Amino acid sequence: MLKVYLAGPEVFLPDAIAIGKQKKRLCADYGFQGLFPFDNEVSPEGSGQRIDLLIYRANTAMMHDADFGILNLTPFRGPSADVGTVFELGMLVGLGKLAFGYTNDDSDLLTRVKRAQAAEFDAAAKVWRDAAGMTIENFGNSDNLMIDAALTEQGAPIVRHRAAPEEAFCDVTGFRACLELAAERLQWPAGSPVGPRRPG
Amino acid sequence: MLKVYLAGPEVFLPDAIAIGKQKKRLCADYGFQGLFPFDNEVSPEGSGQRIDLLIYRANTAMMHDADFGILNLTPFRGPSADVGTVFELGMLVGLGKLAFGYTNDDSDLLTRVKRAQAAEFDAAAKVWRDAAGMTIENFGNSDNLMIDAALTEQGAPIVRHRAAPEEAFCDVTGFRACLELAAERLQWPAGSPVGPRRPG
Repeated sequence: MLKVYLAGPEVFLPDAIAIGKQKKRLCADYGFQGLFPFDNEVSPEGSGQRIDLLIYRANTAMMHDADFGILNLTPFRGPSADVGTVFELGMLVGLGKLAFGYTNDDSDLLTRVKRAQAAEFDAAAKVWRDAAGMTIENFGNSDNLMIDAALTEQGAPIVRHRAAPEEAFCDVTGFRACLELAAERLQWPAGSPVGPRRPG
Repeated sequence: MLKVYLAGPEVFLPDAIAIGKQKKRLCADYGFQGLFPFDNEVSPEGSGQRIDLLIYRANTAMMHDADFGILNLTPFRGPSADVGTVFELGMLVGLGKLAFGYTNDDSDLLTRVKRAQAAEFDAAAKVWRDAAGMTIENFGNSDNLMIDAALTEQGAPIVRHRAAPEEAFCDVTGFRACLELAAERLQWPAGSPVGPRRPG
């Protein structure tokens, strides 16, 4: 059974463990084993070790163990995705592993920065600039080009879905779409008794 | 001569190319060759290709070519580092390459989130929560634990320096400190005619 690393800022929600269990059930529906970083379950008691380093080691060990990843790249505390999740996307790419991503905000980066700051169009340079005078990328991408392009180059652009605000971090519509993409991409030969399958 | 990939949000400044040249000169002072992602120099004219994908390919090719990286992890458009730079940190780690990082804001993540949002302490769970009810990490780290721990696990914690606000993205004090750390770590045998050296 292929293993999928599940990354996203939902680990910071009070009901993170329940959300992780739901995602793992959805993975199982497609014949995948979900690996969810249960940050809260790391117990440093008696070890004398720093809990942040223990979590880092547990998460990176899971990424090494995983066959591919699905990343929740919904904007978090600003116009861009959670940096923890983005680090993990980069690491999966560096490890040569396939990654799929989704966002629960279907707007593009330029739109979100303009909503948050006094942005201006620099007619001479033909670029948009934020309040600090820094260029705002305008490729129509969901986020910084390194994120969108990493996914596109692997064959599946980021899945954009507009979730209800109260469901911003736990809506699983885009997550299901990534499972569909993964099942198509990693499909076992027809008739195989094991491997990814459509739920049903 | 060892090659160092230079990542950071200064690529979005109007004088990005001048800053890149300055950083490359500093690298040369230590016996390193700096590789700076001159995003603005990619020319898609006539190629019919998407410029964002061309930049991605140029940057990732540079990372594959580099021996190690130095990353500017100064908070960008919110409480955390630039996601493009963070993607690159993750990719370098995934590629098994050494990375050094610095920030021009010496405050910790919790302090910055509390400054920006109505955060509250959840006495039952013993964690700080942001305005959306999501846990704010409280390890005293500069940013999300994946960032700080990635650097610490490699042997050199993030270099924190408080730059003047107008120098937030171009102050090179922390960058020089990373070059020092790299020179110590990657030092050639004494008397070697090539390789990293102290400037002077």
